[in-house]
Amino acid sequence: MKHCLWILLGISMMSAADESPIAIALHGGAGTIERGAMSEELEATYRAFLHDAVTSGYEQLREGRSGLDVVVTVIQMMEDSPLFNAGRGAVYTWNGAHELDASIMHGEKLDAGAVAGLSTVQSPIALARTVMEGSPHVMLAGPGAEAFAQEQGFDPVSPEYFGTERRREALEAYKADEQAGRKPEADHKFGTVGVVVLDQAGNLVAGTSTGGMTGKRWGRIGDSPVIGAGTYADNRSCAVSATGHGEYFIRHTVARDICARMQFGAATLEEAARTVVIEELVAAGGEGGIVAVDPAGKVAMVFNTPGMYRASIDATSRKVVGIYGEDETP
Amino acid sequence: MKHCLWILLGISMMSAADESPIAIALHGGAGTIERGAMSEELEATYRAFLHDAVTSGYEQLREGRSGLDVVVTVIQMMEDSPLFNAGRGAVYTWNGAHELDASIMHGEKLDAGAVAGLSTVQSPIALARTVMEGSPHVMLAGPGAEAFAQEQGFDPVSPEYFGTERRREALEAYKADEQAGRKPEADHKFGTVGVVVLDQAGNLVAGTSTGGMTGKRWGRIGDSPVIGAGTYADNRSCAVSATGHGEYFIRHTVARDICARMQFGAATLEEAARTVVIEELVAAGGEGGIVAVDPAGKVAMVFNTPGMYRASIDATSRKVVGIYGEDETP
Repeated sequence: MKHCLWILLGISMMSAADESPIAIALHGGAGTIERGAMSEELEATYRAFLHDAVTSGYEQLREGRSGLDVVVTVIQMMEDSPLFNAGRGAVYTWNGAHELDASIMHGEKLDAGAVAGLSTVQSPIALARTVMEGSPHVMLAGPGAEAFAQEQGFDPVSPEYFGTERRREALEAYKADEQAGRKPEADHKFGTVGVVVLDQAGNLVAGTSTGGMTGKRWGRIGDSPVIGAGTYADNRSCAVSATGHGEYFIRHTVARDICARMQFGAATLEEAARTVVIEELVAAGGEGGIVAVDPAGKVAMVFNTPGMYRASIDATSRKVVGIYGEDETP
Repeated sequence: MKHCLWILLGISMMSAADESPIAIALHGGAGTIERGAMSEELEATYRAFLHDAVTSGYEQLREGRSGLDVVVTVIQMMEDSPLFNAGRGAVYTWNGAHELDASIMHGEKLDAGAVAGLSTVQSPIALARTVMEGSPHVMLAGPGAEAFAQEQGFDPVSPEYFGTERRREALEAYKADEQAGRKPEADHKFGTVGVVVLDQAGNLVAGTSTGGMTGKRWGRIGDSPVIGAGTYADNRSCAVSATGHGEYFIRHTVARDICARMQFGAATLEEAARTVVIEELVAAGGEGGIVAVDPAGKVAMVFNTPGMYRASIDATSRKVVGIYGEDETP
């Protein structure tokens, strides 16, 4: 009789393990993304990419890969694509250079790594992970961060690696606007990528990677490498990656605040995300959006801009791929 | 009769304005500060300095000066003193240089400014304020931040300005320990300064300035210039400045979390500060402390190290100056 109980308990635990929820959500930047401003062909390219990236991440989670591995590999797909402002395809600084930022956080023990102002590192998200796992620090910047990368065996790439004609033209348009005293093109601030997951072990992980703002000067650091602003993960509440006008996301500690409203204020993920992005940020004038996942595998993808490149698969296996505001949300 | 009412109302409003609470708290670093490890003379020097600094700040608040002005001027007193690891007296990096960080935040509209990795700016807190008020950005780093400083009229100082024999010896001891495989001297991470105030207009302001960690490498950025980690201010909850092992303070978004526990979880300032510093940080192994003030002018000075250089005057005019753990707390 006792034996039977142990066997039954064992079976129920195995089945609970098989059923442990998994979920993933990703973004490729928010902004003035409107139907009609994009060719059908380019739109289809984005949709196919977002679909493939989220499916790849979900399959890896199903196979039991760690959330850290999944966040890094999916962000690397996006860093390697010129479609997004991260890695290859990063925007240009005022001086015609590239300065890339990234961060990653693991929700179990709140481990985190962040890098800022990189010019020669092919995958900033990989270096952020190495800072987390291979250094006593959380945040490294500039030439010091690149020296650390080389000590850790990262081969430097030449600045040309990141360059694309589309982003070069965006810099020229930005400078022409600024120098003529016109308001620069609306979207020079956007295009960051980010991934959040819940893995089979119940860990929440978030990562973000960006090329920053077109025409940025003075060693500006945005929200992407700032833990609590562009990225946060805590198994007790949620994992968040943000994209948008970084200064507002730093001042409102957007990623941490969404989790904090769940942890201290008992909000649901969707309520917390909407309060921060739709109420607080809109009142302050901060444009952008977030993707987030909670410990039950619920997903939120919330933005206050016309569009956000996004995709998710939640714990019920429901898949969503969207670009414009009127596309379905999770 | 109606006139009398208006006059009475006017008098009561004037008196309310006269009575609007003000408060200030400051720290000069936390760590292994123990009675017996310091000469009586040096202890008296620290106590006199802390007393003068907090009194100066309080008098400025009484005269109606803005919280921003008070935070900057009091931090500048500490930056200019070689007693603290900020400005003159900053610790040395591994390469024998100085890399200074600072940040400031105003609680009314959550405006913020931060600078990291400065080598030639005499007052990092003044530059952080200029970033907040004179740029579209929140955070600038490295040579870019110094170029911004010069565009804004900051005269560069030579690296020798920051140097002191005491800190040079600390670097040599640190390197000798590291290279011999010994655990480096306990306090190489500490000594940051910070000030928080409630001004007559009801605004909460927080600022923090630091020379970083002795022997730091790879362009490491600690919590001091990270909004939400080392510094946070929101008129709805509190103003916080932190000092300690920065990596833990970033991962736990310490300054923001104290305010968030008040805003979302209805904790008092003291409860929120103790939960974060004494429970969360101790469980994680993160040493350090905070000073904080709330909209009623209550003060909290909480640390999990043997000592913290600190001083405060709260809304009841009660003055506290302390160094060791057993000194009185507010």
